[in-house]
Amino acid sequence: MAEEQENVIYVGNKPPMNYVLAAITQLNSGANKVAIKARGRAISRAVDVAEIVRRRFVTDAKIEDVKIFTEELTNEEGNKVNVSCIEIYLAR
Amino acid sequence: MAEEQENVIYVGNKPPMNYVLAAITQLNSGANKVAIKARGRAISRAVDVAEIVRRRFVTDAKIEDVKIFTEELTNEEGNKVNVSCIEIYLAR
Repeated sequence: MAEEQENVIYVGNKPPMNYVLAAITQLNSGANKVAIKARGRAISRAVDVAEIVRRRFVTDAKIEDVKIFTEELTNEEGNKVNVSCIEIYLAR
Repeated sequence: MAEEQENVIYVGNKPPMNYVLAAITQLNSGANKVAIKARGRAISRAVDVAEIVRRRFVTDAKIEDVKIFTEELTNEEGNKVNVSCIEIYLAR
């Protein structure tokens, strides 16, 4: 459980290469698996990150699984909003 | 092959509900499977569409598979660019 947490990259609004570097570092430091996670508009960027890692840098890595689901969040006004999420599992 | 083509929804820049409606129509007209496809920034919207269909409208539909991959396109200047793609397979 604790180990699983360490191998997660949360993709936000920074340039894709920041997350690519984080994922490569994970995959090259003993972890043979990394989960790339994102919500909302960052989902497209998460797919970019996974594809760049797999095609350009860690070419023996495969996309093991892709999960999509919805999370219910509470926004600043106290309203509940549904946000789409993605989890991409890369393994070498 | 021909049948497969009919059951594809290409998600672009229109409001998500346009694609949601198209997917529901497919699933309610004999097709028990629909592929929701998108490229680039529309990927986030494709995930929204699949989740809205599955959670709000066709609640017996399940996400059967999610594929991510890269396509090499040629842009207006004649340069090759890599674009991330997603295909979400919904089945009831």
